[in-house]
Amino acid sequence: MRKFASRAFPTAKQIYIPKEGTCPLGFIAGGAHSGVKKEFNDVAVVLSPKHECTAAAVFTKNKFCAAPVQVSKRILKESKGNGYYGVIVNSGCANACTGDAGLADAQVMAKHLTNKPVVVMSTGVIGQRLQLDKIKKGLDAAVANAGSDLAHWQSAAEGIMTTDTFPKLISREFKTKTGSYRMTGWSKGAGMIHPNMATMLSATFTDAKISSDLLSSTVKFAADRSFNAISIDGDTSTNDTYVVLANGASNTEIKANTLEYEEFKKNLTEFSIDLAKLIVRDGEGATKFIHIKVKGAKSFEEAKQVASTIATSPLVKTAIYGKDANWGRIVCAVGYSGVDITPEKVNLHFSSLTKPELSLHLFKNGSPFEINEDVAAKILDTPDILIEIGLGLGEEEASMFTCDFSHEYVSINADYRS
Amino acid sequence: MRKFASRAFPTAKQIYIPKEGTCPLGFIAGGAHSGVKKEFNDVAVVLSPKHECTAAAVFTKNKFCAAPVQVSKRILKESKGNGYYGVIVNSGCANACTGDAGLADAQVMAKHLTNKPVVVMSTGVIGQRLQLDKIKKGLDAAVANAGSDLAHWQSAAEGIMTTDTFPKLISREFKTKTGSYRMTGWSKGAGMIHPNMATMLSATFTDAKISSDLLSSTVKFAADRSFNAISIDGDTSTNDTYVVLANGASNTEIKANTLEYEEFKKNLTEFSIDLAKLIVRDGEGATKFIHIKVKGAKSFEEAKQVASTIATSPLVKTAIYGKDANWGRIVCAVGYSGVDITPEKVNLHFSSLTKPELSLHLFKNGSPFEINEDVAAKILDTPDILIEIGLGLGEEEASMFTCDFSHEYVSINADYRS
Repeated sequence: MRKFASRAFPTAKQIYIPKEGTCPLGFIAGGAHSGVKKEFNDVAVVLSPKHECTAAAVFTKNKFCAAPVQVSKRILKESKGNGYYGVIVNSGCANACTGDAGLADAQVMAKHLTNKPVVVMSTGVIGQRLQLDKIKKGLDAAVANAGSDLAHWQSAAEGIMTTDTFPKLISREFKTKTGSYRMTGWSKGAGMIHPNMATMLSATFTDAKISSDLLSSTVKFAADRSFNAISIDGDTSTNDTYVVLANGASNTEIKANTLEYEEFKKNLTEFSIDLAKLIVRDGEGATKFIHIKVKGAKSFEEAKQVASTIATSPLVKTAIYGKDANWGRIVCAVGYSGVDITPEKVNLHFSSLTKPELSLHLFKNGSPFEINEDVAAKILDTPDILIEIGLGLGEEEASMFTCDFSHEYVSINADYRS
Repeated sequence: MRKFASRAFPTAKQIYIPKEGTCPLGFIAGGAHSGVKKEFNDVAVVLSPKHECTAAAVFTKNKFCAAPVQVSKRILKESKGNGYYGVIVNSGCANACTGDAGLADAQVMAKHLTNKPVVVMSTGVIGQRLQLDKIKKGLDAAVANAGSDLAHWQSAAEGIMTTDTFPKLISREFKTKTGSYRMTGWSKGAGMIHPNMATMLSATFTDAKISSDLLSSTVKFAADRSFNAISIDGDTSTNDTYVVLANGASNTEIKANTLEYEEFKKNLTEFSIDLAKLIVRDGEGATKFIHIKVKGAKSFEEAKQVASTIATSPLVKTAIYGKDANWGRIVCAVGYSGVDITPEKVNLHFSSLTKPELSLHLFKNGSPFEINEDVAAKILDTPDILIEIGLGLGEEEASMFTCDFSHEYVSINADYRS
């Protein structure tokens, strides 16, 4: 029974909101409305009251790094990723560009529920002070509301939303030879999503047992292939944080150099990619999901540079919005990516991810090839698009996930503060 | 009498279209409708029948460099910038990504009027072959229409338009101690405008006399401060070309290491900046002109990198469109520009170029400062905006000129080919 169900989400997004799932043992999650935002949940907590967690995180590289990021970084450094109590979040105010006063506010927020290490996150408008009184009361209410059902987790996921149109939540269970562990995670972020990283908050919680050092390298690997591979508009924010907490409540231990670890790494990476994709699914004003895959590069970095250039081209993104298979703009973006490509070796395939049988080899070895406007129109009528570039220079590849650029994107962002 | 007047231009843009002016001696200009585009002029010529010209040019750095660019580059290399007859242009078809056949087409186009060196330019849809028969007839008609009045030059400027809403033409006369020279230039480009360089075509013609070597270094200097300092959407195209032709018909000679040369360099740079600004004035769907000035940088390059990051941020550009003085997004862009800035030293001024008395010091030494929504609203009600960033790290500065991101931008680019 979700007594805290507070809002409706778009029908088209309902398929992305899980209706059932098993959550990791030992965690409780909750959201509440503190009053910083006019309505709806605007604070969230996920806590592990009985089992201290190991923690690992990646943070924004923006030089204007917000107060909560500075505080969370310092706590992570001092604790070496051990002894964590949980994650606490507020939305509506980013506590960024708020100077020393903002830093003190973030510290108060971090200490409000516990003296143990926590990750503190904020998202919302930049340059305004936190309304600490409201947030403290809100956090208390979130704790009072907290529980271990999926509905409690959803309430927390709702508490971190800003321009998001639906809560982003995934829950999965994994078997090992001797036992099992679970992961539940949420993410948020609609505008300003771009690698390294962007008003993107995400956290994954698992009841596996894993050392903070091993968790740390795993989270970095996963982030490069997930949250650092998505782009809505190329802007990167002051507050981005992706954190993973492991409380060991399942007694399933993941040790380095084992088959279990390789499985865990793969599972966490796929889990992170799926959380990241949910953000793209909710790109501000997005009508299409676009997977850009660049193959045949000399290195992962060069492949990613080409993919990123296409993913951030407003001309490519408006063309897809207009259902125009404008391969010229894609090829043009490949040409100015800064990577030393050979035009005569470039190939471009355009297909539907929704209906993979719809595919065109639009550009072959540097020249237009299978130009078929009818098939192109059919591909672009489906919601999920795959753009595949072959560079013909090597064996490496990289992917970016992005969305189209719509009238709605302009409306949302021209009018964010009002 | 403009017998070839063929179309109406927006009332708001009329102030940018010159009604009178003195054009350089010895050149004739003309436009015509070849039929590649449904209506309006789509070819243009500017020729110097009696005086061979020196020429210098900068071209796109896109790896998919279009056939006309390849041909023009080769001609410039072989001629060493001497003996030029003029510039010929078609619009509606970019002759890009057209392989060897497209290269042959561009060569035919280049040879159609003369065996002397010419600059050949194309702009329009990528990946389609030139309709050479139509273009040849169109060029003949443009020559037949050509003349030396400003109206003839405007007809030529109309022939290079694609999504441009008005012809971009400037004409000026400069006095020297012993004589005078004139410059007339046109430019085109609306979407895809970004440094290095972008479906941007421009040409300036002068009756000064200057060696091709000296002209070459001057054009590079001017381009870095003009066409390489504007951005509409960050995309750079396959066809960009900026060329300057000097026919010496005025007998006013510009020699290296003279006061006259310094004046000429300054004049050509300002002239080029003004031609480049006209392109921004016509940014697809633009409602605001934005000058971004970054000061206090360690180098020109770092200043430009910060300015360029702000100029290409969709969040900044939609905020300005929404008349929102969202300093947070500007500061955020400074933070992720990749330049090693010190947050506590960053200052931001926001003012109107239209009414310079309207100004706010929004951000002072790393914190929000003069936040006054009333004044901000007044600034954003004016069409020309200045965003000034102080980095506090050095003495260098750079400017970028850009425009806002509107619903109209999305409409134009979602629907370009239909």
